[in-house]
Amino acid sequence: MSVPVETFFLDPDAQGTLQAQIQQMIAEAILSGRLPRGEKLPSTRALAKHLGVSRITVTLSYTELQASDYLSSKGRSGFYISENAPEPPSFQPRHRTEDKVDWNRAIGHSFSEVSTPQKPQNWRQNRYPFTYGQSDETLFDHNSWRLCALKALGQKDHDSMVRDYYDQDDPELVEFIARHILPRRGILARPEEILITLGAQNALWLSAQILLTQRRTAAIEDPCYYSLRDILMQSRCHLEPIAVDADGLPPEALPDGTDVIFATPSHQSPTTATMPLERRKRLLDRARELDALVVEDDYDFEMSFLQPPSPALKSLDKEGRVIYVGSFSKSLFPGLRLGYMVGSEPFIREARALRSTVLRHPPGLIQRSVAYFLSLGHYDALIRRIGKAYESRRNVMEQAISEHGLTASGSGVFGGSAFWMKAPVSVDTTELAELLKAQSVLIEPGKPFFAGSGRPRNFYRLAYSSIPTDRIPKGISLIAQEIEKLR
Amino acid sequence: MSVPVETFFLDPDAQGTLQAQIQQMIAEAILSGRLPRGEKLPSTRALAKHLGVSRITVTLSYTELQASDYLSSKGRSGFYISENAPEPPSFQPRHRTEDKVDWNRAIGHSFSEVSTPQKPQNWRQNRYPFTYGQSDETLFDHNSWRLCALKALGQKDHDSMVRDYYDQDDPELVEFIARHILPRRGILARPEEILITLGAQNALWLSAQILLTQRRTAAIEDPCYYSLRDILMQSRCHLEPIAVDADGLPPEALPDGTDVIFATPSHQSPTTATMPLERRKRLLDRARELDALVVEDDYDFEMSFLQPPSPALKSLDKEGRVIYVGSFSKSLFPGLRLGYMVGSEPFIREARALRSTVLRHPPGLIQRSVAYFLSLGHYDALIRRIGKAYESRRNVMEQAISEHGLTASGSGVFGGSAFWMKAPVSVDTTELAELLKAQSVLIEPGKPFFAGSGRPRNFYRLAYSSIPTDRIPKGISLIAQEIEKLR
Repeated sequence: MSVPVETFFLDPDAQGTLQAQIQQMIAEAILSGRLPRGEKLPSTRALAKHLGVSRITVTLSYTELQASDYLSSKGRSGFYISENAPEPPSFQPRHRTEDKVDWNRAIGHSFSEVSTPQKPQNWRQNRYPFTYGQSDETLFDHNSWRLCALKALGQKDHDSMVRDYYDQDDPELVEFIARHILPRRGILARPEEILITLGAQNALWLSAQILLTQRRTAAIEDPCYYSLRDILMQSRCHLEPIAVDADGLPPEALPDGTDVIFATPSHQSPTTATMPLERRKRLLDRARELDALVVEDDYDFEMSFLQPPSPALKSLDKEGRVIYVGSFSKSLFPGLRLGYMVGSEPFIREARALRSTVLRHPPGLIQRSVAYFLSLGHYDALIRRIGKAYESRRNVMEQAISEHGLTASGSGVFGGSAFWMKAPVSVDTTELAELLKAQSVLIEPGKPFFAGSGRPRNFYRLAYSSIPTDRIPKGISLIAQEIEKLR
Repeated sequence: MSVPVETFFLDPDAQGTLQAQIQQMIAEAILSGRLPRGEKLPSTRALAKHLGVSRITVTLSYTELQASDYLSSKGRSGFYISENAPEPPSFQPRHRTEDKVDWNRAIGHSFSEVSTPQKPQNWRQNRYPFTYGQSDETLFDHNSWRLCALKALGQKDHDSMVRDYYDQDDPELVEFIARHILPRRGILARPEEILITLGAQNALWLSAQILLTQRRTAAIEDPCYYSLRDILMQSRCHLEPIAVDADGLPPEALPDGTDVIFATPSHQSPTTATMPLERRKRLLDRARELDALVVEDDYDFEMSFLQPPSPALKSLDKEGRVIYVGSFSKSLFPGLRLGYMVGSEPFIREARALRSTVLRHPPGLIQRSVAYFLSLGHYDALIRRIGKAYESRRNVMEQAISEHGLTASGSGVFGGSAFWMKAPVSVDTTELAELLKAQSVLIEPGKPFFAGSGRPRNFYRLAYSSIPTDRIPKGISLIAQEIEKLR
């Protein structure tokens, strides 16, 4: 590959002759690792023209650099970075700036102090990854996805890929969600009531920005998805964590003054509890009493392989109180960053305006590819395949859990992709996770899911969405052994 | 296509016999437009199992609906929505919710009251689209882009597509930006100093959230990119619009107490002015005096086909005061939603944390496809091709502008993709744009770019990025005629 001439600039403050400056510029680029050995330099003519210097100056610089073995020449074909050029000190370009900014002062709002635990980026290298929320490539329908993306990359769909949608979405995707996804959850919605988001995370964030202020109160489940708590803490609203029980969030516990209730009725995160119909009705009654809204995160509903899922809370909502959040992260894959929210038109209008300011719209190519994946029926087939695989993994896991005397605190009546586990009270699962990691077993400690002080340390989550069936028994036995040692 | 059984639910509050409820459920779905004519219904067995009712109940419901011509049966192959089924009232599902929420109260922060002008979504249908910021498919290298996306969709890159990166980015893309894009702007940066964003819009938004508070002051150019002003107004900081001149932002006009300066030194938006080196140095000196930061939006730098672009302001920054924002919207296409920002590590750490809370990360497929497009050299070739086409369009346009006695107020010494035009003072270009639209000519009125009251009404922007060369003269003549009528 040859180095574009545009990458070269002379430092306007540089000292010395032009020839020396050019030599230094090239040598620095080699030393900083920007120009690897074997790459071709611009011709002397091109570089001279670009820098506005005479060609002989460039030629002299090149020749000089050749003499010191930074460059080599291959006859008429020009100059190359020499194979004997000095080795750059790894990938650390020499730094000419010295930071003079007091960043503690310059940063007006800090966002980096969140509690979100570090997730291992290399989970695939572990033998027993009971890792939650990542995609299993052995189950994914790579071929159909590729064909759909290919279709979306075609000439016919060029406009939908390249255009600036400003605050709009791909109408095809919106229509398929309205016609084929939402009805499965018992939800009827018009396009003006639907917004496409960068995943469920983005939908929850948008909701919090619009509905909450420093003077308002949000009720969250305890334990809950920790990223949601981070979102709400950043919004600086008042937070009321409500302890969940075996049926999920108890509506009676919602305090007066609650403005927004964040809930996972169909499949409580992380305990997997499903809220019975009776309680759902009471939750909506309580919301009416409080004149509160409910943000329903319906993550994982596609993974209802044991029984058909109960309809979404939104399907019972006759007053427009429920804002529904769905995602393709679990059914397709998380790196897609695609989700959607459904709510009353005045709310969706605000969410659309905010999304437009923050990022405009999710990429057109991603939206159209998913629209094809849905409309060609691959989505349904994929969900059935994943459900089947999860069911068999789940059965193996359930048996291993009981054989090794471990305790599942929540297992999800509809299916899902994980067990919520309880170790003996004396066991700190953060420590347990560290010890198991050394044995290539990945589990998720439960503590970050809980709010406040005195958080229980003995819960953990075991997912079966990324671990091959045949590794489950051994993985569970390693967990059991380690717990035995720790108790 | 057959209708998935999961889309059917019985209303838990419904009255009447089960058979009647099922009939009503299906009839409503047809009447609401959810089930179009010709689609196949689930088998009686499947639906009975799903709803937990007896099969005979479902059969009776289907037969009843067949009698009233909602359904038709094709012998053993099952039931279909009849071709004579009642027509749904367009795409407006019957709505069972009656909004009881007082949205004026429920919305804590409103975002929809921004000044951003409505952009025509159907600009392609116009004969003379002097439209800015959209992609021209005749110039785009569709084939190479498709091949790069295809490569990114391959088995080898599966993980980079599907994984949840949390707050991280595709390391390949970051490295290519560091090695091949930033050096053209005279910038050396380490990966920890680079963040990938959902376009430049997202980068500007992130900067504003982190650096500004209600007590801080941001200086912006006047006129400037109006979406930037919306972003800053939402941050509720104090705003100081600084009138630009033919050399861009005058540093001396920056008032004491300025905390952050938003600037477009290389190619002022929208006036196209390029800030001379001397003034850039004075801008940095003034920033140092104020202990302020500069957010440099380097949009459009790739379109420097007349002369090599001057290095970015960031390249002169020895103190870490400049935050650099780049984008692939102009060089690839806006629907990609991909940009990047470069800044000191403490700042990028905050931006990364905030981006992670808001949306996690730009989709992996998009990042990797662009990484290939860059690394295989298509990016450079594309920019050269676009530059060539823009140059010839620009020449034709310059000639037409002068022939018809129009006035270019700014034309960009390096190139770019638009002229900043000035009509006689008596002409309101918002009105002009409306009149021209009726003749299939699209221009952009200048008023939204200006701040405050007493904004000039007689400026407008004419882009040559989306209009074919041979339509330019006629388009310009139509504009000239209409201006003549209005003055």
